[in-house]
Amino acid sequence: MTETTELRIGVVGAGLMGADHVTRINHRVSGATVTAIVEPDEARASAAVAQTPGAVAFRRIEDAIEADAVDAVLVATPGRFHEPVLLPALEAKLAILCEKPLTPDSESSLRVLEAEQRLDRPHIQVGFMRRFDPEYIQLRRLVESGDAGGLITLHCAHRNQKTGEGYVDSMLITDSVVHEFDIVPWLVGSPIASVEVRKLKRNTLAPSWLNDPQFVMIETESGVLANVEINVNIQFGYQVATEAVFEKGVAQIGRSAGIGVFRDGSFQVAEHQDFRTRFSAAYDTQVQRWVDAVKRGEIDGPSAWDGYRVAAACEAGVEAQATGRRVDVNYIHKPAFYA
Amino acid sequence: MTETTELRIGVVGAGLMGADHVTRINHRVSGATVTAIVEPDEARASAAVAQTPGAVAFRRIEDAIEADAVDAVLVATPGRFHEPVLLPALEAKLAILCEKPLTPDSESSLRVLEAEQRLDRPHIQVGFMRRFDPEYIQLRRLVESGDAGGLITLHCAHRNQKTGEGYVDSMLITDSVVHEFDIVPWLVGSPIASVEVRKLKRNTLAPSWLNDPQFVMIETESGVLANVEINVNIQFGYQVATEAVFEKGVAQIGRSAGIGVFRDGSFQVAEHQDFRTRFSAAYDTQVQRWVDAVKRGEIDGPSAWDGYRVAAACEAGVEAQATGRRVDVNYIHKPAFYA
Amino acid sequence: MTETTELRIGVVGAGLMGADHVTRINHRVSGATVTAIVEPDEARASAAVAQTPGAVAFRRIEDAIEADAVDAVLVATPGRFHEPVLLPALEAKLAILCEKPLTPDSESSLRVLEAEQRLDRPHIQVGFMRRFDPEYIQLRRLVESGDAGGLITLHCAHRNQKTGEGYVDSMLITDSVVHEFDIVPWLVGSPIASVEVRKLKRNTLAPSWLNDPQFVMIETESGVLANVEINVNIQFGYQVATEAVFEKGVAQIGRSAGIGVFRDGSFQVAEHQDFRTRFSAAYDTQVQRWVDAVKRGEIDGPSAWDGYRVAAACEAGVEAQATGRRVDVNYIHKPAFYA
Amino acid sequence: MTETTELRIGVVGAGLMGADHVTRINHRVSGATVTAIVEPDEARASAAVAQTPGAVAFRRIEDAIEADAVDAVLVATPGRFHEPVLLPALEAKLAILCEKPLTPDSESSLRVLEAEQRLDRPHIQVGFMRRFDPEYIQLRRLVESGDAGGLITLHCAHRNQKTGEGYVDSMLITDSVVHEFDIVPWLVGSPIASVEVRKLKRNTLAPSWLNDPQFVMIETESGVLANVEINVNIQFGYQVATEAVFEKGVAQIGRSAGIGVFRDGSFQVAEHQDFRTRFSAAYDTQVQRWVDAVKRGEIDGPSAWDGYRVAAACEAGVEAQATGRRVDVNYIHKPAFYA
Ligand SMILES: [Mg+2]
Ligand SMILES: [Mg+2]
Ligand SMILES: [Mg+2]
Ligand SMILES: [Mg+2]
Repeated sequence: MTETTELRIGVVGAGLMGADHVTRINHRVSGATVTAIVEPDEARASAAVAQTPGAVAFRRIEDAIEADAVDAVLVATPGRFHEPVLLPALEAKLAILCEKPLTPDSESSLRVLEAEQRLDRPHIQVGFMRRFDPEYIQLRRLVESGDAGGLITLHCAHRNQKTGEGYVDSMLITDSVVHEFDIVPWLVGSPIASVEVRKLKRNTLAPSWLNDPQFVMIETESGVLANVEINVNIQFGYQVATEAVFEKGVAQIGRSAGIGVFRDGSFQVAEHQDFRTRFSAAYDTQVQRWVDAVKRGEIDGPSAWDGYRVAAACEAGVEAQATGRRVDVNYIHKPAFYA
Repeated sequence: MTETTELRIGVVGAGLMGADHVTRINHRVSGATVTAIVEPDEARASAAVAQTPGAVAFRRIEDAIEADAVDAVLVATPGRFHEPVLLPALEAKLAILCEKPLTPDSESSLRVLEAEQRLDRPHIQVGFMRRFDPEYIQLRRLVESGDAGGLITLHCAHRNQKTGEGYVDSMLITDSVVHEFDIVPWLVGSPIASVEVRKLKRNTLAPSWLNDPQFVMIETESGVLANVEINVNIQFGYQVATEAVFEKGVAQIGRSAGIGVFRDGSFQVAEHQDFRTRFSAAYDTQVQRWVDAVKRGEIDGPSAWDGYRVAAACEAGVEAQATGRRVDVNYIHKPAFYA
Repeated sequence: MTETTELRIGVVGAGLMGADHVTRINHRVSGATVTAIVEPDEARASAAVAQTPGAVAFRRIEDAIEADAVDAVLVATPGRFHEPVLLPALEAKLAILCEKPLTPDSESSLRVLEAEQRLDRPHIQVGFMRRFDPEYIQLRRLVESGDAGGLITLHCAHRNQKTGEGYVDSMLITDSVVHEFDIVPWLVGSPIASVEVRKLKRNTLAPSWLNDPQFVMIETESGVLANVEINVNIQFGYQVATEAVFEKGVAQIGRSAGIGVFRDGSFQVAEHQDFRTRFSAAYDTQVQRWVDAVKRGEIDGPSAWDGYRVAAACEAGVEAQATGRRVDVNYIHKPAFYA
Repeated sequence: MTETTELRIGVVGAGLMGADHVTRINHRVSGATVTAIVEPDEARASAAVAQTPGAVAFRRIEDAIEADAVDAVLVATPGRFHEPVLLPALEAKLAILCEKPLTPDSESSLRVLEAEQRLDRPHIQVGFMRRFDPEYIQLRRLVESGDAGGLITLHCAHRNQKTGEGYVDSMLITDSVVHEFDIVPWLVGSPIASVEVRKLKRNTLAPSWLNDPQFVMIETESGVLANVEINVNIQFGYQVATEAVFEKGVAQIGRSAGIGVFRDGSFQVAEHQDFRTRFSAAYDTQVQRWVDAVKRGEIDGPSAWDGYRVAAACEAGVEAQATGRRVDVNYIHKPAFYA
């Protein structure tokens, strides 16, 4: 055995997502170790630490910083708790991988941008993992190559098996379409200009308080109109798919794959049941590339600026949802810092 | 050989579509013979008759009627020439299979309805052949069975290789979406309540005068919102596909089929290049079932009433296209005659 | 209505297959009518005639001939009853479509060939309907075009849901592989040179007396080795598929098609349950083209010579099955009559 | 940054495969570092070390052992050089991941088994990476579950784009079918009893000295007959696929996946071009799990015993290839050490 130098990561939040990242970093990512769990809930913290040899639990990010326990943080708490973690972490010049959203609204996102700009270079990468999914990458290359002609429109579907108790209408936008608010501009190569939301016929199997599914239209500044079927109680499985229409062809990603079985009168291919299998490889690649970049003093993925733009689009989306109108999305001028 | 009694069909219009029907009736449909070609263009008429042993050419439908040359007519001229054929044919009590549209506008369609109601029963069947396509039929059965829960929404795509000189913006609606105006209510089990049209980014490969593709939203009285990507210069092929979203699942029709070949680095399945191969079986079934029904004194497919409703939806669609607004579709009260 | 001249067909055998053909001829095939049912079983004959207006029942083919009731016969009895129908039908110079096999053995097939050669030209077409299946046709074109390089090998699978009481081991060859004995030479463009059969692990769900499935290797004179998995109690459905390996690629036919549904955790496409849906279009096309050819004084499909060669291959196959050895197939010299 | 304890791996052989593993271990595998490159060719060794900060080059495995530079070795040289690496590595009690084959023949494999049995427990894992491919794993689970009934037969295809200069007939068996010799018993749960090889029609695009493709039949002691189309100059791509036939169904792995594009008249899905993309995830998982197991003092994959059995099957395969006969495979009695 040899002693090697590894990036010390503090995972903030020991819920489902945090635990998944701890396992990832310790068992599949090269060059990084979880050295701290930041979690106010003591039971959760203990459970996480028990499975993470060498890691120490802290109640607050400030404590971990003070103890000089981490080089970097992976923020895996709910979005409304991000700002109070991001600001001290930035002040301590830690590298940051922040699960989406950056923050829940554009105002708080702007505060984060300001704090980050006091540093020498961007320190925050936002966890929009779709950018690391092989099929999204292939689709983006097809757009950039022009091989199928110019991109005309995107038909997106985001389908979940079911939602839990706390899930309310606005979360269709802020929890699910939030991914399209990142990936559509990334695919198209142009920011979102406006958002419009129409309610679809209600799924009677959804919780009674929810208008599920809905239909979102996203227009980019370059004039590409994308639509999103957001549908979170469709029972049969978890499915994220996009059909991209070009001038000379059509591309499809998110098609079913894997072992196919003829039985009981039909050909069957299992569909994903949640995001962890669907985006398993994307998460691994995202964290590995972030770790590698951090060691070079860089980030390698969506920045806080991208996070801010998504926050602005989410605000517009929630307003569009409430009013039924097309809502423009406005941004501050992009700082040279994020060029 | 034996003498058998066959339905005498006059094919009106000896263009591409008419010629296709002549071949069908004479070579693939049982119990019917083309005995008349009604076509004012003499060269065309002669060419058609030359390939139809036993058939006689007439310049006008009235001449064929007067000559007692036909029991039934299959109208395959452009839509604006339908009314002057339909009215005398109805008066002569002929059975009628009329290619879509019934007529180009609701006012003329209403005149046809009135004329038809002077007879003892519906004599007109409209050629919305998708209703005879095996996959559309399977999809409708899935809706009716409730096996996948209630129907929530339909994503439709209608893609053509390219359009010719006379094809203008309104024809995106009246020539292509016209099929969805029939099939959406048929699948959903509810009439169209409103239509909305948004222009998509223009395909630079389309003729310069055309805003192609466009995005049409169709809402039914029952609250199902269907969308249609209408896209008629997409180069790669001819494709009509529908994704139906249910409460518990998703169904797809119009998927690629047939021989699959691995070559030159990829797996390839040929796509259709025009409607004649895509809907070949549907056309055959439609005409055979119409012939069988006519012999029983019935029709067996969409009626003139369906044709009228589609004409009304087309008018709303063209207005929606011009104004950018959602346009309601209004109908007269449905006569008991069409119950 | 008009009196037209139609081919008068006598359907011999009013079982499952015969009844299917009666419906086809009367309801989907143009230019032909069933005018006679030849069936010794009186109950069956009456039932068939009741559904075939204008048709007359005869106990024996000779009676139908004597009554001058038919221009052509479609023979749909079990193979062992073919010769006594074919010989008088040939003598009467009737056109003949004979369901496979021509006869059960090469000796009787040779007697049929001899009788046919007394006529001016071939009168018998054998019902190997796969030659009319669109995918088999596409595959043959790919072979002939050379676009994927030379043909190297064929992997064939022939799977049935289950078999009945009378089905014994030799029928794996004579009832099922019989189709590959026709289609393999047709695809390859070379006759069968030898047959070898290996028993596979027995399916415990097959009847106890059956060695099912088996694995058949067919070598053509041109050196193409095809293999066939013959598997007739596989429960899940009916499946006939071929993978053709070329010098530069691989083609697959018999892939699942039609409506695809995501439900209950998986993507599902219904598989065929019997040959009637799988080859429905092929049967229709076969009979229509035969009727058209008969009117021109021709046949338009596999001849009695093809039927004889298949009979010879079946004999070799049954011997190979019994002995476990590779068995050569020998043919008489091909008469110029069948050139 | 923190100092952590990592497994020190010596990669033996700095060719294509070795370089791929160095990248993997240093950039994607957690808990291990490449500390030594063992490679007699100085230029290659220098190139490898230049890309592996902290690693030292050694000419021979003995030198790396003497320098106490490694805890484990990953052997990535051609098979004929394995034994001289394995024996000293075993003597030094190193953990070993040995690329296939263990050794080129059963006699040398037995010598390795003997040397290994002098240790307290198995130290060698053989690099049959298919066992770590998600679809092979799913297929094995389907076999074990019995959900589709008993396993009847396997149709395997192993297709390569093309082969290089040194590739000769026997390598069809020892380089390619070698994988099926491991995976077939692993899937079936029973050792190989016999091998038979038939030459297929020669691909004229293959090198002139090669009888390519060939057809291999593998029978297990439990009576499952698997066949393998081994085809290494098929031009279009790299494809490893298996169709497993069960009593009640059929499963397929190795189907095309990923982005699908309609263009130029067809639907297209890119096929793999070599094993590195096809089995990328399998290689990563294999090495990560081996590293994790080594730290627990175990192996976690095929053992030297499996490697020996494959060597015996390869010998039988080469003999079967040369003689055209079915050749039995015989093994020594399995030592309790490998139980
Ligand atoms: Mg790690
Ligand atoms: Mg006809
Ligand atoms: Mg008929
Ligand atoms: Mg590492």
